[in-house]
Amino acid sequence: MTEFQAVAGQAGIIEVAMFGAGRIGTIHAGNVARHPRARLRYVVDVHAPSATALAARHGAQTASVDAALADPAVGAVVIGSSTDTHADLIQRAAAAGKAIFCEKPVDLDVERARACAAAVKQAGVTCMIGFQRRFDPTFAALKQRLEAGEIGQAEMLVITSRDPSPPPASYIAHSGGVFKDMLIHDFDIFRWILGGEAVSLHATGGCPNLPEVAAAGDVSHTAVTLRTRDGALCQINTSRRAAYGYDQRFEVLGSKGLLQAGNVRPTEVVAWGEQAISSDKPEAFFLERYRAAYALEIEHFFDALTHGTPVRTTIEDGIKALELAELATRSWREGKALDCAI
Amino acid sequence: MTEFQAVAGQAGIIEVAMFGAGRIGTIHAGNVARHPRARLRYVVDVHAPSATALAARHGAQTASVDAALADPAVGAVVIGSSTDTHADLIQRAAAAGKAIFCEKPVDLDVERARACAAAVKQAGVTCMIGFQRRFDPTFAALKQRLEAGEIGQAEMLVITSRDPSPPPASYIAHSGGVFKDMLIHDFDIFRWILGGEAVSLHATGGCPNLPEVAAAGDVSHTAVTLRTRDGALCQINTSRRAAYGYDQRFEVLGSKGLLQAGNVRPTEVVAWGEQAISSDKPEAFFLERYRAAYALEIEHFFDALTHGTPVRTTIEDGIKALELAELATRSWREGKALDCAI
Amino acid sequence: MTEFQAVAGQAGIIEVAMFGAGRIGTIHAGNVARHPRARLRYVVDVHAPSATALAARHGAQTASVDAALADPAVGAVVIGSSTDTHADLIQRAAAAGKAIFCEKPVDLDVERARACAAAVKQAGVTCMIGFQRRFDPTFAALKQRLEAGEIGQAEMLVITSRDPSPPPASYIAHSGGVFKDMLIHDFDIFRWILGGEAVSLHATGGCPNLPEVAAAGDVSHTAVTLRTRDGALCQINTSRRAAYGYDQRFEVLGSKGLLQAGNVRPTEVVAWGEQAISSDKPEAFFLERYRAAYALEIEHFFDALTHGTPVRTTIEDGIKALELAELATRSWREGKALDCAI
Amino acid sequence: MTEFQAVAGQAGIIEVAMFGAGRIGTIHAGNVARHPRARLRYVVDVHAPSATALAARHGAQTASVDAALADPAVGAVVIGSSTDTHADLIQRAAAAGKAIFCEKPVDLDVERARACAAAVKQAGVTCMIGFQRRFDPTFAALKQRLEAGEIGQAEMLVITSRDPSPPPASYIAHSGGVFKDMLIHDFDIFRWILGGEAVSLHATGGCPNLPEVAAAGDVSHTAVTLRTRDGALCQINTSRRAAYGYDQRFEVLGSKGLLQAGNVRPTEVVAWGEQAISSDKPEAFFLERYRAAYALEIEHFFDALTHGTPVRTTIEDGIKALELAELATRSWREGKALDCAI
Repeated sequence: MTEFQAVAGQAGIIEVAMFGAGRIGTIHAGNVARHPRARLRYVVDVHAPSATALAARHGAQTASVDAALADPAVGAVVIGSSTDTHADLIQRAAAAGKAIFCEKPVDLDVERARACAAAVKQAGVTCMIGFQRRFDPTFAALKQRLEAGEIGQAEMLVITSRDPSPPPASYIAHSGGVFKDMLIHDFDIFRWILGGEAVSLHATGGCPNLPEVAAAGDVSHTAVTLRTRDGALCQINTSRRAAYGYDQRFEVLGSKGLLQAGNVRPTEVVAWGEQAISSDKPEAFFLERYRAAYALEIEHFFDALTHGTPVRTTIEDGIKALELAELATRSWREGKALDCAI
Repeated sequence: MTEFQAVAGQAGIIEVAMFGAGRIGTIHAGNVARHPRARLRYVVDVHAPSATALAARHGAQTASVDAALADPAVGAVVIGSSTDTHADLIQRAAAAGKAIFCEKPVDLDVERARACAAAVKQAGVTCMIGFQRRFDPTFAALKQRLEAGEIGQAEMLVITSRDPSPPPASYIAHSGGVFKDMLIHDFDIFRWILGGEAVSLHATGGCPNLPEVAAAGDVSHTAVTLRTRDGALCQINTSRRAAYGYDQRFEVLGSKGLLQAGNVRPTEVVAWGEQAISSDKPEAFFLERYRAAYALEIEHFFDALTHGTPVRTTIEDGIKALELAELATRSWREGKALDCAI
Repeated sequence: MTEFQAVAGQAGIIEVAMFGAGRIGTIHAGNVARHPRARLRYVVDVHAPSATALAARHGAQTASVDAALADPAVGAVVIGSSTDTHADLIQRAAAAGKAIFCEKPVDLDVERARACAAAVKQAGVTCMIGFQRRFDPTFAALKQRLEAGEIGQAEMLVITSRDPSPPPASYIAHSGGVFKDMLIHDFDIFRWILGGEAVSLHATGGCPNLPEVAAAGDVSHTAVTLRTRDGALCQINTSRRAAYGYDQRFEVLGSKGLLQAGNVRPTEVVAWGEQAISSDKPEAFFLERYRAAYALEIEHFFDALTHGTPVRTTIEDGIKALELAELATRSWREGKALDCAI
Repeated sequence: MTEFQAVAGQAGIIEVAMFGAGRIGTIHAGNVARHPRARLRYVVDVHAPSATALAARHGAQTASVDAALADPAVGAVVIGSSTDTHADLIQRAAAAGKAIFCEKPVDLDVERARACAAAVKQAGVTCMIGFQRRFDPTFAALKQRLEAGEIGQAEMLVITSRDPSPPPASYIAHSGGVFKDMLIHDFDIFRWILGGEAVSLHATGGCPNLPEVAAAGDVSHTAVTLRTRDGALCQINTSRRAAYGYDQRFEVLGSKGLLQAGNVRPTEVVAWGEQAISSDKPEAFFLERYRAAYALEIEHFFDALTHGTPVRTTIEDGIKALELAELATRSWREGKALDCAI
């Protein structure tokens, strides 16, 4: 029996339990509902009104975690609840034999994330981690052209990753630090694009003009450098605040050229005025910028289940990115370049 | 009783009959299905397999024109069938008291289109014409900024409108000519952006390198100039063939600046190579370029019905654009600039 | 004896008399002075202080027209004085056997311009007209790529040509009208790029928000359409006022693609702010935009004399452009499309 | 007596001795010759034919170093000879009381460079170092807008600096290493833009696909991170080879926005083809890209001498950049992040 036969009902439709009815859960639930091979059966959230509202929108029911996982009709779970619940839900869903889609990160603690991976492996279920950027049409097209050899061999990657404005200090204090909270995506991009693991890493940071971030024990601006076994280099620069919006770009220098992935604008209006020629700022934030990516990753998850093909972003990818985030945190704290025994 | 009360069922949902299950009908049907206040009840098409397939996809039924219009549960019709059926369907749907969304053009014959408008008026139903470009996010944002006064008063409009490749000669022969078939959209943009009617019009054309279009009695390339009562000018240039894809741009010069509406690219990848720096071509054709616009116009139609607000593109707009297309055809044939008694 | 032997001194250096020490004369004088085969000998201007200052800057002397033309050491003249002096100076310089570079237009009167061409022909001297746009690096590169076949055969040309702000009404009254004063350059671009003469022409115009131009009997905004024997089309749109600066663009649609010639910016700074992403406005006006073109046309003139090769912009080109300007004026006044017996 | 009175002749013209008649010397000589307050008197080069040819072009004479420095008429020297001659020429010119313009670097040895600075200080002469990038119109405009507060306080600087192709291995072996040879310009940009000295530095590098650079004991690709006392961060990425040409960009994130300085293109032609939309590659290499900058720095030098104002790029700037290059070399070799006691 294939995994699909195991998780899909007789009609070939996978019944889904959605954990989390917040901002990202709402996005995922909508995308699940649109997939021809998936059906939203349960919405689970500690905040009952949110669960009820989201379930109603898609003709689903609310349920407890226990009930949802105990229902043999449920073939897959989508985990979009708070970070501290991810590991527990992954382990329980794996034990229950459900296919799993989980938002990043697996957990803030690397050991615990590894335990999840072990549980997933033992259960033999699919577990996809929500590194949605790999599904962004621009990023994915770049990757495809890179693999097609358009610029020869990748030699240097420069990633710019900036949020429009910092989260509240209370959030920062429990975020696991900027490297795990924000750069984990960039570490995944590094691994995905350069296709090799890091042999050395250096991270530094600062809080120019954002003393509240420093007060929370974190940095608002970071600069990370990685080197791969092949001598390819990667520089990541990030900021918790970009007055002009959400800035998500990267570029790869290859032996035969350069590929850039730029921001996406809401419209293509250009205004020529007395002072300057101006175009739209980038899409406002991740929900807008990665709207298509969120839809495509859920589509990919159910397509992979349907066809028995591997998922693009595995739990191992989630752990590798987390390990880099942990190393970066240490590099920044100790002020040292580190060798990576990854 | 408001129109909404008349067309919506007791649950406040408008049941819809879709005429046409071809390329554009499929798009509209999907957008109808997604609207929270609309439900696709019937798909009508002379080609039964197409109707059946499209109906099945959305849990609707197939029906004949008569049956669909006779069903009192049907509140609205969406007409996406071939051009020669539009007028008849509009008149019958109006007589049946249904709200109407109809693809452009109303008809190739101006008199017949006027008769439709009269029927719609007499029936007191809403009739929206599918000038989807007014709903394109880029074009709509430009219009909004223009109305907000960003560039002062509009003085000159330049429209570039080019298809990727010409339709078959057989299509051209029955298309009503390029001015009705293709420029009707551009004449609508002219009226919408400059906000005034034309007092003079000059049209010319040619068939450079497309002798088959000339053989069909039409022109492949056109150049049209319009002038409004206020002295504002408009130039439209079109081509049936642009080797680089579907080209849909316009720009408005105002007393205080310029607003440009550019093409949309599939991705934001930029490649720097040994010969040049290159970015994506525009979206391939109208189904891709106006994907959002098609969704937004259907949303607008049902929102307007729901709230009793006027639709943005009325049957009168359809007639005015058609009249300009007819004048342009005459100007081209006679080689004369014409006064517009519009 | 070649023309070069006739106009150059024994040292192989061409001594030059510069007519006009105003804005454009100053530009030309500087470019003459920089050419290794030219030497500025005389500056002639009715305004003595200007002549003296410009002559001093380049180690030249002032002279009267008569004296300058009588000096056998003078091999070439550069005419940058007011338009009404051009024809007389061309005829006298030709009679004196001098090679001639003259700013556009030859004259506002076509008959008189033709008389100049006859005089030039009879004298057997080189006479180049200052259509500097053909020497603009961007325009010239486009022309070269077009001729190399990059986009197949040219089918449609769209020219946008706008000044930052209108000249005083007093200037307009004596300018010969906008078609001769401003569009003469665009008519030359039309002829140069499409490479064929016009068979029909339509011109219209208006004065939106510029009543002072209407009061001077002219139009501030124009829209011109031309068609060539081959069925290629050209649309020209111009304005006396573009709040965002000097706008000089054109684009050519060919059977295999499109070539655009864009504006030039002073710097490549891009600012990403809270409202928009903005870049520099175009270069301020023609002296800035065509700085390189002015240098290159003078270089071309002396190079052509040196090597006995033809000049790129002949007096015949000047007359053809003038004829189109005259036709356009008539088309606008009469409100008619005209056949061109050119 | 001001320095200008000391270095200028009675006519207020500064006579100049040019050391070096190679590629960069030729550029500088042309710019000296064009300056109204400067006159090229001597060209000095060990390769006599080059000196003779360059001198002839500008009406200058050739001379030995001794003769040129001994001539009291010489007020200033421009040093564009090979790097290993800079220090000696600076010291001798200073001792002779000449104003000095010297190409970067002062010397490859920091101690020797400091000795030059001491000599210059003791002599009381002006000594400007040729960091021409500070005079690039785009870079200079960005700096000006940054200082005007357009984006608030600078927080992060990302510099991309890539050559089109690597120099021969023989050059690399004697270049002092990539950090001194190539990044010295980028270190100067860092200091100029962020306006504060570094407190920490990390450098790494590799030779992907360029084993000949590794064989010469150097790296072809580098990634450098600097942090200032204020917590501002800087990332520099460089490569000896960019298949698409000379890539010279930087961007500054500020508390209120971002300023980008982009590459300059030879022309503004954009081609829309069947595969992509493409524009020109960047200017080919430094002589083209910084043509204006080279002219403006020489103009600045003589203007500064004339008006007794300070030069923008002092010998101290030259030493600071060299110190950073030396630290970077050490950081790369030792694989460590370093504190800067600068």
